[in-house]
Amino acid sequence: MENRKCIFLIADGLGDRPVKEMNHKTPLEYAKTPTLDQLVANGMAGLVHPYRAGTRCGTDWGHLCLFGYDPEKFYTGRGSIEAYSAGLELQEGDVAFRGNLATIDENLCVVDRRAGRISDTEEINQLIAEVNGMEMDGYQLLLKPLTEHRVAVVVRGKGLGGKLPDTDPGTACEGEKVVNPAAINSWKGTDEDRRTAEMLWKFLMEINRIWSESPVNKKRIENGQLPANFILTRGSGKAMVPPAFTEQYPNAKVAVIAGDETITGIGRMCGFDGYSKESFTGGFETDYMGKAKMAMELLPNYDLVIVHVKGTDLCGHDNLPFKKAEIIEQIDGMFRYWMEQEGSENWYFAMTADHSTPCCRRDHSADPVPSFMAGPDVRKDAVEAYGERACAEGIIDQYTGAQLMATIMDYLWFSKKYGA
Amino acid sequence: MENRKCIFLIADGLGDRPVKEMNHKTPLEYAKTPTLDQLVANGMAGLVHPYRAGTRCGTDWGHLCLFGYDPEKFYTGRGSIEAYSAGLELQEGDVAFRGNLATIDENLCVVDRRAGRISDTEEINQLIAEVNGMEMDGYQLLLKPLTEHRVAVVVRGKGLGGKLPDTDPGTACEGEKVVNPAAINSWKGTDEDRRTAEMLWKFLMEINRIWSESPVNKKRIENGQLPANFILTRGSGKAMVPPAFTEQYPNAKVAVIAGDETITGIGRMCGFDGYSKESFTGGFETDYMGKAKMAMELLPNYDLVIVHVKGTDLCGHDNLPFKKAEIIEQIDGMFRYWMEQEGSENWYFAMTADHSTPCCRRDHSADPVPSFMAGPDVRKDAVEAYGERACAEGIIDQYTGAQLMATIMDYLWFSKKYGA
Repeated sequence: MENRKCIFLIADGLGDRPVKEMNHKTPLEYAKTPTLDQLVANGMAGLVHPYRAGTRCGTDWGHLCLFGYDPEKFYTGRGSIEAYSAGLELQEGDVAFRGNLATIDENLCVVDRRAGRISDTEEINQLIAEVNGMEMDGYQLLLKPLTEHRVAVVVRGKGLGGKLPDTDPGTACEGEKVVNPAAINSWKGTDEDRRTAEMLWKFLMEINRIWSESPVNKKRIENGQLPANFILTRGSGKAMVPPAFTEQYPNAKVAVIAGDETITGIGRMCGFDGYSKESFTGGFETDYMGKAKMAMELLPNYDLVIVHVKGTDLCGHDNLPFKKAEIIEQIDGMFRYWMEQEGSENWYFAMTADHSTPCCRRDHSADPVPSFMAGPDVRKDAVEAYGERACAEGIIDQYTGAQLMATIMDYLWFSKKYGA
Repeated sequence: MENRKCIFLIADGLGDRPVKEMNHKTPLEYAKTPTLDQLVANGMAGLVHPYRAGTRCGTDWGHLCLFGYDPEKFYTGRGSIEAYSAGLELQEGDVAFRGNLATIDENLCVVDRRAGRISDTEEINQLIAEVNGMEMDGYQLLLKPLTEHRVAVVVRGKGLGGKLPDTDPGTACEGEKVVNPAAINSWKGTDEDRRTAEMLWKFLMEINRIWSESPVNKKRIENGQLPANFILTRGSGKAMVPPAFTEQYPNAKVAVIAGDETITGIGRMCGFDGYSKESFTGGFETDYMGKAKMAMELLPNYDLVIVHVKGTDLCGHDNLPFKKAEIIEQIDGMFRYWMEQEGSENWYFAMTADHSTPCCRRDHSADPVPSFMAGPDVRKDAVEAYGERACAEGIIDQYTGAQLMATIMDYLWFSKKYGA
């Protein structure tokens, strides 16, 4: 069997709506994309529904769909995803939270939700090391730092529940007391939820005790900085442990390249290898060609290399259609680079998005996303250029994200046969 | 109500991908098909997903979908399908196996997996008659011959399970001992599975005892032929007993014409009448016009006549695109014949496939299959010719196989109304 390869680019929030200032074209239709147009002309295109027609996806949900999953079956919220992003390996039954290093006073009132925007990696690592892995009553606390003051929090043990009120009193509530979920009179959790709330609170109190004595914080106070002496938690949820991608596509090797930790985290959750680099910002200006080159380096070792670009989505949120078109032209350059490599005529290329983020709406929408697949033997449809309007006549029009992934994996010969 | 009729042709593995030697056309696009093009131009077309977008179907699974079913709900494997192919009527709770008449020695070691390729129908029928219907411990054994040395095996009775190891030691294992599943130490079946294994073994031992004394075998040995003194079984599975087609479409009368017994078997499983003829080979060269004429003979007595052609699939497996185009031209001739019959302007015509079998892949793929429906009052779409690329713009594009069948049955006035 031949060695089949695919580079699959996900341009976050790519899909858009007609923009008046662009002569009623969308940013994708407006952008000059000779390479993408050529690929579309030689392959099959369509407007793809990341989840289902008419549904509006968040980034995590949309990516899970594009990765071939039905998140409805296991999605429990951001806590788990941040844990994977931080590099924690979740187990069935764990409960995950999003956490902030914070400053509280002796009355447990919030002084600063971000502990003076603590960002020194050494300080953070030392603080985490002082408490990570702590065990009490047969339960364990696991922590991993994320960017700046953010930290992934996991409670591990038997009979835990995932639906807890936040200990974080909220963004506009500095000066308010930290919330002990188990002490909220009006809260009726299940036995499992209450057990988890009690354990979480015990762990947080112990953290407060240990960090109040920490040399890191003594030094911070000496330097006139706020101490990090607490973790505010929010977004609790039972661990998402989806079946590995290889259960559906045995032996498939998949890499995901992204600047945004959320995306590599979702990839790891599915069993992909996540890759990033300092210069991959997950912002407007990222190292596009650095990502393109990394994909080339990884391709020999993987069947499928997924490359994520975030800027298109940010432009949608900020209503910057011309900037969005510019980023799309950068993406065209990435494909041009790949097409110029030796052997590229044997590779498959695909592109889609996790959702549309129309500039006029400044938020995600349910509009399906322009998508294509090209490469050896791929059926050619009548679509000649990459754009929302043109794609509607293509072969993969109306596919779901998971069906697009299934199609890619079929062309890579990883699909199983139903029946005989 | 008028007497509405439809001829529905299934060209096995019809769908393909661009072929370089055909100027990047598919075999269907390359073939000269004036009749099919005319039907498509006057009707509605589409790329149909036999099961779902992105899934790759086997022949049995794909046909069940085209017949309006969701095999996910009841599919248990080939054993049941061969039983139906042989003409056995399965009941809920039966366990079916694929069987080979075989030769074993006194130590139960395989001498020949096909009993010297036994093929004399009279001999086979007499052997089967000696043991068929045998009862032991409240269980019954049912046998029906298939082609040559093949035989369908069914164990009937209470509390049986369908997941048994094969008694057949395998294709490369002549000289090895026949496997008694119940005696495999490492095998942990359910109580039902173990009970079935024990009963099967008892039946097989009794068959060996009876056939060792059979006059058929004595004569075979006299003639220097190997005796058929055992049945090797494989592919066990609980009986598939899907709801009858008429449960969904009351009173619909359906005939299926095929050279391939698997297809008539699947049809019988759904409650269709299966028809074949010696000259319908299920191979490259079949009696195309014989099938076309049989359809004409059956049409007065049926609402829907399904005609199956296997050659297109075989060409895909053998990478013979020009041969595939030739067979498609034969199919065009079948439709031309039908169109020339008196009254044909009142009939519906449809065509699809159970899956694509691209020549370049030499196996089934998940590519959707070019399909059409034409006839009185059928909506006309913009598609003017029958081909993979053209169909993508048609009205029934992205339909599933079951939805295509539902549409046919709706035009025949058999569809139920949801609500009032």
